[in-house]
Amino acid sequence: MADLESKRIQKLKELFAAIPGPNNFNGIGDDTANFSTPPNELTIVTTDSLVEGVHFRREWSSPQDLGYKSLAVNLSDLAAEGGKPLGFFLNLSLPPETPEDWFTEYIHGLFSIAKEFQIPLLGGDLTGSKNGIFISITVQGSAPREWIKPRSGAKEKDLIFVSGRLGDSAAGLNALSKNHSGFEDLKNAHLRPRPHMAESEFLRERSNVHSLMDVSDGLLLDLPKLADESQKGFRVYLEKIPQSLSLLEYTKTIEVDPWQFSLVGGEDYVLLGTCDEPTAYELQRDFHKRFTRPLYFLGEIMPASIQYWLKNKEPITPSYPSFKHFK
Amino acid sequence: MADLESKRIQKLKELFAAIPGPNNFNGIGDDTANFSTPPNELTIVTTDSLVEGVHFRREWSSPQDLGYKSLAVNLSDLAAEGGKPLGFFLNLSLPPETPEDWFTEYIHGLFSIAKEFQIPLLGGDLTGSKNGIFISITVQGSAPREWIKPRSGAKEKDLIFVSGRLGDSAAGLNALSKNHSGFEDLKNAHLRPRPHMAESEFLRERSNVHSLMDVSDGLLLDLPKLADESQKGFRVYLEKIPQSLSLLEYTKTIEVDPWQFSLVGGEDYVLLGTCDEPTAYELQRDFHKRFTRPLYFLGEIMPASIQYWLKNKEPITPSYPSFKHFK
Repeated sequence: MADLESKRIQKLKELFAAIPGPNNFNGIGDDTANFSTPPNELTIVTTDSLVEGVHFRREWSSPQDLGYKSLAVNLSDLAAEGGKPLGFFLNLSLPPETPEDWFTEYIHGLFSIAKEFQIPLLGGDLTGSKNGIFISITVQGSAPREWIKPRSGAKEKDLIFVSGRLGDSAAGLNALSKNHSGFEDLKNAHLRPRPHMAESEFLRERSNVHSLMDVSDGLLLDLPKLADESQKGFRVYLEKIPQSLSLLEYTKTIEVDPWQFSLVGGEDYVLLGTCDEPTAYELQRDFHKRFTRPLYFLGEIMPASIQYWLKNKEPITPSYPSFKHFK
Repeated sequence: MADLESKRIQKLKELFAAIPGPNNFNGIGDDTANFSTPPNELTIVTTDSLVEGVHFRREWSSPQDLGYKSLAVNLSDLAAEGGKPLGFFLNLSLPPETPEDWFTEYIHGLFSIAKEFQIPLLGGDLTGSKNGIFISITVQGSAPREWIKPRSGAKEKDLIFVSGRLGDSAAGLNALSKNHSGFEDLKNAHLRPRPHMAESEFLRERSNVHSLMDVSDGLLLDLPKLADESQKGFRVYLEKIPQSLSLLEYTKTIEVDPWQFSLVGGEDYVLLGTCDEPTAYELQRDFHKRFTRPLYFLGEIMPASIQYWLKNKEPITPSYPSFKHFK
């Protein structure tokens, strides 16, 4: 077993040699990884686990998709904090019957996103598993203090925005689980979510952006987290939540309310934040210039006691079955 | 499930509130953990997974022991590099049938070692698992560059040392697996290994210590790793390898060569290193003064082509069955 893992480490090292490490990096081969964090910046660390049968199924996710996604979800957390990546660590536990091809394809999926965003591999731990695949990835980053946008930064009257459409990922998971043909863009949104790194780079340098997080558990759960950390409330207009044409088409086909996916779905990994109201349209204009799509405003931050979801100007209590993490 | 995990995170936060975070720490509750790494120091990171059925069994390890050990093995890696701990991240995936008491006892075991060495909890990820318990811990540390003792630093004629006895952990695992009564000190060496943090603090400040690692896979595997990274060879005198009286007594009882445990066993988590020969006895004297036990010299670093294990001055080829990772 130890021999197999040494060979796999060698494969990983060779593949990732193409992405240079951070300053003074000395890692794979020693007990620890050592490197410089840029002076006068804060260290930023995030870690997420993906567990077979809880977060993914091998029938639906190819090893390449899983490799891509396992780093993407961590980069999304880093983007949500305004951080620059320095590198990542991979802890991967595989059952003995895992085909070697699975491993090879997994690390190629991982490498494709690492290369796209230039994230070097700094270390990790490869082990066996008795049952099921377990992946834990830890991303190391840094940022000058002024870039860091905490969840707790929202101010009253701030406008609430998201950096992309909501609901595609959950609809894609639904299509996969029901074995629906077509709707590849929705499935792809679930299997290979794009971390909003460029959007984060744009937003973190704006002092009128007060708070930021990523939408991983669905707007219905995530927005109250941001509001609570800021000791504030909110008012959201459901009509303003951006939805893709594919989502509308798919939900029509399966006769489900599209809000079920856009509000409760989760795993969209777009950025959710708040900004100063008087300069909000300037921010939106610059965002549009840079990304050729709008920064979507959904509503406003209110005093702490108010949490309104408005549909046709009427407050509603959205109650949809949660179908996150498919068991 | 999400609710259960929120409650568990709350329990962890409350328990670990007693250990203050690093400078400018802002973590649990946001997407990432942010903190300052001491200026002019390198960042040091290490991560290790413990997998049920591969690295531990619930029949042998109490949840408290496992909590203790899961952080201990990571602290040992940090000690092997000469690093100071800043904090740690916990990724824990538990099957749905795990009793809540198991979780509570696990985090109390984790807290006991965290408190002993003042290691704050910085973040992590709690998830479900379909089968088996998965633990990944990542320790974040730092050190001035001159403290860092790489595996590659060994020089010809250096003396090879270990900071403690070898074989107790493997013998303890053997006793556990055979349901042998007694030999609690051996079992304890396996279940709650003590990371050599104080020994690392002593050794890292000595410029005559040239290389350092920890013994996790057994001397027979680990010493060649150090030698290879340094592009050197070695000569080890088996008689000089320190063994405990309990180990000698246990191996007599079960009629096994004690070297099987001391050479191949692994998981002792003592420090293995090399130092300048002319000043070695001064180092040993100071070590004895500080720890009231010897720094054990085992042999010398040689030119790259030489790898000798000597028994009664005769080179032997140690060939013992590997019984590391019990499947």
